[in-house]
Amino acid sequence: MRRFAAALLHHPILDRQGGTVTTAITNLDLHDIARSARTFGVSDFFVVHPIAAQRELAERVREHWMTGSGSRRIPDRTPALEIVRVVSSLEQALAELGGDAEIWTTSARVRPASISHAEARARLETDGRPVLLVFGTGWGLAEAVHERSHAHLFPVRSAVSDGYNHLSVRAAAAILFDRLRGEAR
Amino acid sequence: MRRFAAALLHHPILDRQGGTVTTAITNLDLHDIARSARTFGVSDFFVVHPIAAQRELAERVREHWMTGSGSRRIPDRTPALEIVRVVSSLEQALAELGGDAEIWTTSARVRPASISHAEARARLETDGRPVLLVFGTGWGLAEAVHERSHAHLFPVRSAVSDGYNHLSVRAAAAILFDRLRGEAR
Repeated sequence: MRRFAAALLHHPILDRQGGTVTTAITNLDLHDIARSARTFGVSDFFVVHPIAAQRELAERVREHWMTGSGSRRIPDRTPALEIVRVVSSLEQALAELGGDAEIWTTSARVRPASISHAEARARLETDGRPVLLVFGTGWGLAEAVHERSHAHLFPVRSAVSDGYNHLSVRAAAAILFDRLRGEAR
Repeated sequence: MRRFAAALLHHPILDRQGGTVTTAITNLDLHDIARSARTFGVSDFFVVHPIAAQRELAERVREHWMTGSGSRRIPDRTPALEIVRVVSSLEQALAELGGDAEIWTTSARVRPASISHAEARARLETDGRPVLLVFGTGWGLAEAVHERSHAHLFPVRSAVSDGYNHLSVRAAAAILFDRLRGEAR
């Protein structure tokens, strides 16, 4: 079984008009996605932000649940926040995984040569290089991130959709972790 | 296919010590769970709170995304918030579904006579009474809610767990909607 890590990118990210922007850190993304990641055996959850002040904010949220008053009030969150790594770039996340990890990207749109979740799950169960599953914030990952990925996952979709498909990144991450590492049905 | 609705209860809820309490509304629960619910074809998302001031808060959040500045900034949220119904009790939610809905409860623990997610999915695909899937806040639904339920769903679990299982209610709801109504694998 391969090492399976996740990353939440805040740059380069698309905005509503398709421009490339840097998004702000959302406190709740950190502990919500960390809890989902830890529950499904994700080894590391990288919070990636190029701006030092934003990384410091993320570190403060992490410390609040690791050793601060949050850790005393809700100790169940501490093991989840333990896997959070605040880094400045995707390169740094890859370096922390040993330098040979595969990048797998996600989006809400179908892209050419996407792999199914069943295929992704099977690939994770083999031996091999670590996998870094990358989620975007804002309106999704910029094209440059997809272009350097080793695989792109199909979007999460409903069986009974009326065309509406606007999951939060927190919900999409929870569902993908479940599909890739949840108890077999 | 049966009508499938969801409810988020704030009373009666367990606290850390097992006492019965009323929890406060978390703004983000409303739009996160509403977006997941709408994406997976859930007909109604009831936000259930016995305190009028808390219901007014929930209504203000709803209006912000329905007709306020939020609806102009991020119009994608409007269809999700359209299915939110702010009510004072589980009875009121059941009445709005026509009075004959089945209550299905969720929790993070295995309970006697729980049904699998595959079984729940199959039951939803038949014709029959509406189903109201009930989620707790805090440390979960009080026993009184489980006692009146028609079915109890198995908890969401990982295939590779180290024993840690502390999903947020937002993540648990997203995963259960996907398991019950997601695109077949």
